[in-house]
Amino acid sequence: MTRIGIIGGSGFAGGSLIQLLCFHPDIELTFISSRKWVGKFIHTQIPILRGISKLKFELPKIENIAEKCDLVFTAVPHKTAQEIVPNLVDHGLKVIDLSADFRLRKIEPYNEYYGEHSHPEMLKEAVYGMPELHRDEIKNAKLVAVPGCQAASAIYALAPLIKNNMIDPLKIIVDSKTGSSGSGAIATESSHHPIRANSIRPYKLTGHRHTAEIEQELGNLANGTDVKIGFSAHAVNLTRGILGTAYTFPLNDKMPEERDIIKAYRTFYRGEKFVRFMRLATGVFRLPDPKLIAGSNYADVSFEIDTHINRIVSLCALDNLIKGTAGNAIQSMNIMLGLKEETALEFPGLYPY
Amino acid sequence: MTRIGIIGGSGFAGGSLIQLLCFHPDIELTFISSRKWVGKFIHTQIPILRGISKLKFELPKIENIAEKCDLVFTAVPHKTAQEIVPNLVDHGLKVIDLSADFRLRKIEPYNEYYGEHSHPEMLKEAVYGMPELHRDEIKNAKLVAVPGCQAASAIYALAPLIKNNMIDPLKIIVDSKTGSSGSGAIATESSHHPIRANSIRPYKLTGHRHTAEIEQELGNLANGTDVKIGFSAHAVNLTRGILGTAYTFPLNDKMPEERDIIKAYRTFYRGEKFVRFMRLATGVFRLPDPKLIAGSNYADVSFEIDTHINRIVSLCALDNLIKGTAGNAIQSMNIMLGLKEETALEFPGLYPY
Amino acid sequence: MTRIGIIGGSGFAGGSLIQLLCFHPDIELTFISSRKWVGKFIHTQIPILRGISKLKFELPKIENIAEKCDLVFTAVPHKTAQEIVPNLVDHGLKVIDLSADFRLRKIEPYNEYYGEHSHPEMLKEAVYGMPELHRDEIKNAKLVAVPGCQAASAIYALAPLIKNNMIDPLKIIVDSKTGSSGSGAIATESSHHPIRANSIRPYKLTGHRHTAEIEQELGNLANGTDVKIGFSAHAVNLTRGILGTAYTFPLNDKMPEERDIIKAYRTFYRGEKFVRFMRLATGVFRLPDPKLIAGSNYADVSFEIDTHINRIVSLCALDNLIKGTAGNAIQSMNIMLGLKEETALEFPGLYPY
Amino acid sequence: MTRIGIIGGSGFAGGSLIQLLCFHPDIELTFISSRKWVGKFIHTQIPILRGISKLKFELPKIENIAEKCDLVFTAVPHKTAQEIVPNLVDHGLKVIDLSADFRLRKIEPYNEYYGEHSHPEMLKEAVYGMPELHRDEIKNAKLVAVPGCQAASAIYALAPLIKNNMIDPLKIIVDSKTGSSGSGAIATESSHHPIRANSIRPYKLTGHRHTAEIEQELGNLANGTDVKIGFSAHAVNLTRGILGTAYTFPLNDKMPEERDIIKAYRTFYRGEKFVRFMRLATGVFRLPDPKLIAGSNYADVSFEIDTHINRIVSLCALDNLIKGTAGNAIQSMNIMLGLKEETALEFPGLYPY
Repeated sequence: MTRIGIIGGSGFAGGSLIQLLCFHPDIELTFISSRKWVGKFIHTQIPILRGISKLKFELPKIENIAEKCDLVFTAVPHKTAQEIVPNLVDHGLKVIDLSADFRLRKIEPYNEYYGEHSHPEMLKEAVYGMPELHRDEIKNAKLVAVPGCQAASAIYALAPLIKNNMIDPLKIIVDSKTGSSGSGAIATESSHHPIRANSIRPYKLTGHRHTAEIEQELGNLANGTDVKIGFSAHAVNLTRGILGTAYTFPLNDKMPEERDIIKAYRTFYRGEKFVRFMRLATGVFRLPDPKLIAGSNYADVSFEIDTHINRIVSLCALDNLIKGTAGNAIQSMNIMLGLKEETALEFPGLYPY
Repeated sequence: MTRIGIIGGSGFAGGSLIQLLCFHPDIELTFISSRKWVGKFIHTQIPILRGISKLKFELPKIENIAEKCDLVFTAVPHKTAQEIVPNLVDHGLKVIDLSADFRLRKIEPYNEYYGEHSHPEMLKEAVYGMPELHRDEIKNAKLVAVPGCQAASAIYALAPLIKNNMIDPLKIIVDSKTGSSGSGAIATESSHHPIRANSIRPYKLTGHRHTAEIEQELGNLANGTDVKIGFSAHAVNLTRGILGTAYTFPLNDKMPEERDIIKAYRTFYRGEKFVRFMRLATGVFRLPDPKLIAGSNYADVSFEIDTHINRIVSLCALDNLIKGTAGNAIQSMNIMLGLKEETALEFPGLYPY
Repeated sequence: MTRIGIIGGSGFAGGSLIQLLCFHPDIELTFISSRKWVGKFIHTQIPILRGISKLKFELPKIENIAEKCDLVFTAVPHKTAQEIVPNLVDHGLKVIDLSADFRLRKIEPYNEYYGEHSHPEMLKEAVYGMPELHRDEIKNAKLVAVPGCQAASAIYALAPLIKNNMIDPLKIIVDSKTGSSGSGAIATESSHHPIRANSIRPYKLTGHRHTAEIEQELGNLANGTDVKIGFSAHAVNLTRGILGTAYTFPLNDKMPEERDIIKAYRTFYRGEKFVRFMRLATGVFRLPDPKLIAGSNYADVSFEIDTHINRIVSLCALDNLIKGTAGNAIQSMNIMLGLKEETALEFPGLYPY
Repeated sequence: MTRIGIIGGSGFAGGSLIQLLCFHPDIELTFISSRKWVGKFIHTQIPILRGISKLKFELPKIENIAEKCDLVFTAVPHKTAQEIVPNLVDHGLKVIDLSADFRLRKIEPYNEYYGEHSHPEMLKEAVYGMPELHRDEIKNAKLVAVPGCQAASAIYALAPLIKNNMIDPLKIIVDSKTGSSGSGAIATESSHHPIRANSIRPYKLTGHRHTAEIEQELGNLANGTDVKIGFSAHAVNLTRGILGTAYTFPLNDKMPEERDIIKAYRTFYRGEKFVRFMRLATGVFRLPDPKLIAGSNYADVSFEIDTHINRIVSLCALDNLIKGTAGNAIQSMNIMLGLKEETALEFPGLYPY
């Protein structure tokens, strides 16, 4: 069995990896680090694992990790990741990084959105860990960079439209709505319950960092055409979940036939277990809703044509911590290890939630 | 003291009127109808009024109403309103209608969005009850039609931009996020708590009925230029409140100076107590958030320029039942009666909420 | 593979069974009935199963069921259950009933709380489906009656204390706090989202129906001593989850040693995977909280001694739809079928939730 | 106009005072201190006051305060209060303190629950600021100590029963359920939104500090009889509001007639505008629910008799920040200043909330 380590087990991303990997039958979780909680049982910090795991948090010593693991997830903040990952790779470990540090192939947008990078040379060899877009590269990757949660939602909503040249690539609006776990496990004034509850808070209407990776990935799908996203993020009254609503205009003002758009989505996501195109859904939940995928690795997508102002509205709902983080990470791991891709990821969510 | 009646006291709109008018020092609430609850004390249905009012629900008999009231609010569904309102007006009563039946000046959009109208001749004489846009007409109106809640939010966000020819009037996107009280007091499958809670549910991405009145009012501000709105509504995890996020593109792709946009908002809302332009706000709540206006008659507006794709993001948060319904209705009443405009409307909300 | 049927798939209890059984590797789900939704795919009503199951709802015809199933869950209202279950048993089917109709061994309390019973003779042969209390009887049962959700919470909190004669059996208070899914899938005025949200609503302070089964089961544990419960239910602002807080007084006013109470809990739940005694928990979540078991089959229990007024406070948190309904039902099924008891029940919940 | 100061404007208690006093027609708010926010406009921290007040936070210099104010509210933590209040009193200021420092008349329970007190001599002259119990003393008080929020809820629920010798004073259980604003404005790990949301968290099952003041006040009502409370606090999924459910046993096991209990409540709260005895309420909201008093100064009380185990369940719902803190404080101020007692306190809450 492949031996798996997690560096950075104290955040929600690391915690979500742990929750899922504890139930993965084909790997062995051999190492979890947390400087903050070193020596403590993991269930003291992830209380749902009480009675389920006897693992303890350890210090992230490279020799230990290299000795105990074959593949390592790094769930540390950006900037920190770029200091750790190269060393792990040098030790021959496969690495799946959940930070923003290796998502971009070019250094310029990294510099623009995040500042300087200490290992720009590694950007080229990293693979963007979105199985639906990069399955073949992930298979042989040494370093996978897991997509940002809100970026993932936007990309899933838009990919079939961009891929089929159906929309103006320079006039794309994404109105993103995200739950509170997306901003991490560390308490801040803005996450204080009485302040955060009942809030629909626009918090990053312009200049959101995920813009760069959305543009990169959609640009690739558009054969290198320039793609520009106007991304606006809202913190909504949820713990988990993202809904991305994308507003686009048909290329050259020529609205595609609805059946062609349907075909575009069907074709793009054919065989993809975890992306569900909700075309024939009816009733209250006929469109993607984060409520329906909370806790699961599913991303639900759909679209509507609006002839009134000649626009296409497309949507994606996903769980920021699963399909938006730990789920795509583990799906990538399964691909890298030649395992059945859906292993440990089949939980469908809870209804009602 | 002017004697006020409310027809349709069993919905949330009627209920909100009652809550506010019970504390209005300059009017007398003399009549409240509800076919469903006739004979019951109002506090049996609006339990926060226990110990505060001894009024009872009555049957809506026109003679009674004409005798007991000088001004009447009609808080009944559209279609029903058009059957009742003309009769009230004929009896010499001033009427403030909270339905959609008299909001539009032209019959065509009414027909398109709502179907046939039994009294199209009255559309001309009704006044759109948004004090900031129609104060002078409201003063002398016999029939005021209170704006739709989501329409109000969109109009407040966009009015200064349209008025100053700053944006392309044919390419306006509104992403509207609304709480559960917006769909009324009657329980349905989709409003069942386990189904509705934790939901961010897109429910009317295209063809929303409020589109027509937004286009009418913004069109007026644009001196009759055609305005087209792509309006998309989401039901979010709140009881009260709306956040409208509007995405617009500068007219002729020429972004105005930021200071000119600021000036546009400042000028447009100068002297308007209840619309707050949040320009210098800082901290967690630097932008409009429904949390901050819940229960109050305030609408908070702001904007950001995004040079990345040359767009303007503008916003408005308001309480769908107050500034979005009963608050604008009472503000209009105060204007019609020559009272101080803010009477009974000064409650600032609750912090934290 | 044992063939399993579900009668009454349209409620939340039936729906939770379906969600769990779709992932049970050792049984085959061959039949699901719903008069309301007959002919529809189950994912049209349980939307999280989109892409996961191709089953359709059928009419509950007894011949069909007898032919297609070896074991049947009945998830219909009480009174209805007693009309269906005997027929199923007569056809040689094993039955697990989720209603209240077969939980009580004596007819008198049934009559008192629920009214008349059409098949009182079957009360004797039914087994109360709480594995921790009746595992051996469940093994060979033909008819298992799944405990009520709030009853289960109270019993788990109190059983070790009663079993060890530590508390006054006639002066037991249970303050139960339950989420909105506990009152079922049918929308009512009281479950309307704007009415139900933000509510901490005492709804059944006295005379709650679950009283009878709690007293029966605790009475058995007390070797037939009379047990009296003062049960008071509150509807709290959750979708899923129950917290039962039990207040008891030491027998003969003699407080047991803390270590003896600890031992009582440890002994009682030794080897029980799904009941966790949280003795050494620390931090924010040192005591049972429904947040920590939502979606899982775990029940978390703990206690505190209060010498100030010489009382013992004991607690149990569980998910009303899983350990409180479908989880105990499936755990019972696994026992009846000789399967590994935890099969399909290992999901640990979500953190954060 | 009496000039009012607030020391400690940065917490939720101080903030609630500010919100209410901004609308008090008969006083002038002349001074608000906050070391943390000194120099800032109050609306930068209490964002609902944007456009409503131009006041700024100042440093709490005693000379300034003495010069600018006639009456001061101290809304600082306990221990801090006892250092400040004596000095204010010495300067001739009337003081209303919102901390726990002057609520107890005896030093022993203070020492037990809070530790040492630097000015025990002042305990005697302070008045417990619950108008319904101490109106006459408040009238002439120099120092009023506002009740703790959960204590207030318990006292309102129990006072008529204790006063009329109806219950065993040594066997009183209070199950208290409180919203997140009760633990203050400072962000902590346990108040982090993803951790706190969806929680029904028992956090202080025994040894809660409010026990002492409940016992003191109920003891007074019982003519000095010893009263013992078993108080257990739960943090529930609300921002504002408390529900106290009290479980009591009739004195000498002799259940009073229901009509006598009704009379006890009616008599005790006769003429009290802000305590509503919900005897004839019907429908969904027939019992006290924090949802119905959020934002208001009302406390709703009721009771039920349970003959099954011979107990009385009594309840009180109130808003922890209003009737539980700032509302009682201002009601006390109105009494001290000879103003109409309900001034600035009439807001009835929001329905729906």
